[in-house]
Amino acid sequence: MTKRYPFLDLASVNEPYMDEMCMAAQRVIRSGRYIGGDEVNDFQSELGRYLNVPHVVGVSNGLDALRLILRALIELGRLTPGDKVVVPANTYIASVLAITDAGLTPVLVDPDPATLNITAQAISTAINTHSGIKAVMPVHLYGRVAWDEDIRKVVSDNNLLVIEDSAQAIGARSHTDGLYVGHNHAGALGHAAAFSFYPTKNTGALGDAGAVTTHDKALADTVRALANYGADRRYHNIYQGYNCRLDPIQAAMLRVKLPHNDDENRARMQSARLYDRLITHPDVIKPLLPEFEDECIWHQYVIRVRNGKRDMMRQQLKLAGVDTDIHYEVPPHLQPCYAGLSHVPLPVTEMTASQLLSLPIARGTDLEDVAAIAEIINNVNLTE
Amino acid sequence: MTKRYPFLDLASVNEPYMDEMCMAAQRVIRSGRYIGGDEVNDFQSELGRYLNVPHVVGVSNGLDALRLILRALIELGRLTPGDKVVVPANTYIASVLAITDAGLTPVLVDPDPATLNITAQAISTAINTHSGIKAVMPVHLYGRVAWDEDIRKVVSDNNLLVIEDSAQAIGARSHTDGLYVGHNHAGALGHAAAFSFYPTKNTGALGDAGAVTTHDKALADTVRALANYGADRRYHNIYQGYNCRLDPIQAAMLRVKLPHNDDENRARMQSARLYDRLITHPDVIKPLLPEFEDECIWHQYVIRVRNGKRDMMRQQLKLAGVDTDIHYEVPPHLQPCYAGLSHVPLPVTEMTASQLLSLPIARGTDLEDVAAIAEIINNVNLTE
Repeated sequence: MTKRYPFLDLASVNEPYMDEMCMAAQRVIRSGRYIGGDEVNDFQSELGRYLNVPHVVGVSNGLDALRLILRALIELGRLTPGDKVVVPANTYIASVLAITDAGLTPVLVDPDPATLNITAQAISTAINTHSGIKAVMPVHLYGRVAWDEDIRKVVSDNNLLVIEDSAQAIGARSHTDGLYVGHNHAGALGHAAAFSFYPTKNTGALGDAGAVTTHDKALADTVRALANYGADRRYHNIYQGYNCRLDPIQAAMLRVKLPHNDDENRARMQSARLYDRLITHPDVIKPLLPEFEDECIWHQYVIRVRNGKRDMMRQQLKLAGVDTDIHYEVPPHLQPCYAGLSHVPLPVTEMTASQLLSLPIARGTDLEDVAAIAEIINNVNLTE
Repeated sequence: MTKRYPFLDLASVNEPYMDEMCMAAQRVIRSGRYIGGDEVNDFQSELGRYLNVPHVVGVSNGLDALRLILRALIELGRLTPGDKVVVPANTYIASVLAITDAGLTPVLVDPDPATLNITAQAISTAINTHSGIKAVMPVHLYGRVAWDEDIRKVVSDNNLLVIEDSAQAIGARSHTDGLYVGHNHAGALGHAAAFSFYPTKNTGALGDAGAVTTHDKALADTVRALANYGADRRYHNIYQGYNCRLDPIQAAMLRVKLPHNDDENRARMQSARLYDRLITHPDVIKPLLPEFEDECIWHQYVIRVRNGKRDMMRQQLKLAGVDTDIHYEVPPHLQPCYAGLSHVPLPVTEMTASQLLSLPIARGTDLEDVAAIAEIINNVNLTE
């Protein structure tokens, strides 16, 4: 019987933490404190220390983290509905949903095909083409930090707000400082950042969870109020807010896992390096290894398959026992809900969308599995 | 030392279920399934059976349940932004936040001072005063069902959509059928209903949780998609949606507690009857006992204190060891975020807001405590 290589098995991912998580869940259940409180506060502090960022607000999920940041910037008068936000067109749809939900206008730009991340050049071109651009949302896609000296320069020169979509990049670091000197973690580079702790993330909760990180206390306070019905104190509603709180029980799960995030990232790095060394199939474009290891935490290891052969490769791999995934098959501007969103061609986004293929990389896929999967890939015959 | 009577102690509330909840949490943690799946599906089925309503969608919280219903009605073309929704002015602010979030216009009406619930008369007056009223949101405040023959007639005669805010009323029943013959539970009376399982509710989760219930499959499907990024299937986004999912771990907690909801409601009923029998203070207006027991599940037992003496009563009770709460001190139209929301006088809402005082009634306050609290109340001297 063929050995099967699942794309992702969350029971395996969480296996090393099961006992500790069960104990943490018991602690919360028996505590009588189920909204806010010490678990949430302690997790916020621990995440802030890990990322070297002063303000952290635990929230319900990554999309809500982005929504709350944008709404807060509007409440604070730093953005106005109708303002434009530059965002890479190949992102997961949540980035765009947050922008339109806030009444802002997304300006979709093509990524660099080598990194699949936004570039200073793309931001510059957008600024020269559109009036009303007030912000940029770099997305650290697949865990690769989207930040360099050129991006820092273009956002500074143009006084753009920088909202990082760090959903996939916990622990990744740029080797260029962010807007704040001495801060270079994804999530500490710009004015504010959104994290997701969706269960599949490198540090995943056991349900939906997220966080907002920022250097700006006023922004953090506004996000915290907006996430709690708009109340700055009990039953005193200064904003028309939402309920986007982080559950203490999820905070407790995350407190178990966060201390192991660096190990998790390192294990993925090893797998990525091995894939890179072993995959030699002529139709496969491997993802770029970053110059510095910690610039990418390999939330996904995404190859591209050339010449219209992605689906054939995927099917052959499936037959050979290797499950894969596609992040993402249909970019936001081609989704039914965003018909007419972009009036400019986005050739890189559309071409790569038809090429992308995510290979197993999470815990549960060990280095031996990686070697076996690479060999299976190399043996796939895509000639028709 | 004076015995203290806490207003609500969630460790006591959950004490009987602790072991079972810890086991349920372990089951979810070890399952590897942390988004959707059997726990959520089974809870939805169990809640549907309990309420005799065909479609249930577990969601993130009660406010999101209301938001999703209204957004779904807009997506389905049954409401249009700008349409007016009649809602009682003395509700918790979440009811109103959902309406304005959807771009709809709340029409605030005063409640019946005897029940603190909306009346057919108020709905009729609103219809005669405003054009563009398309829906009504009865709020089953404090657990008392807001539904009778007259309300059924006025909403039917005017083809109004009925969205129940059932956040506080799980298990309450009307003795008039809802819009669907044979269905009389709060949450099954109108076109759709929102439940909250905030930890303090009669059936409370161990974090934020909620549900949408409806007789309408198209509405349920739309809510489900909107709550999952607007996707009707994986990575296929037909709506500009949200992330408002119910966590499996919270579904598992609720599955432990839902079977005990009737017992919980009955215990509160006994406490309410005893308060009613024993409280005789001349400045206290006791809440009306309903004609049929199950018309009210006593989520809160809310007295009114006349003659501007509420705060004095509250302070005296505190000195005597009795913690109380106020639901709610400031109605939505007097909150900073809703300045100018209502241009009509709301005398009942404003007068009662200054009189309301919630007494301890949840598990942890036994009948002996109720008797003691009633005696303490009766002995409070409010003459100056």
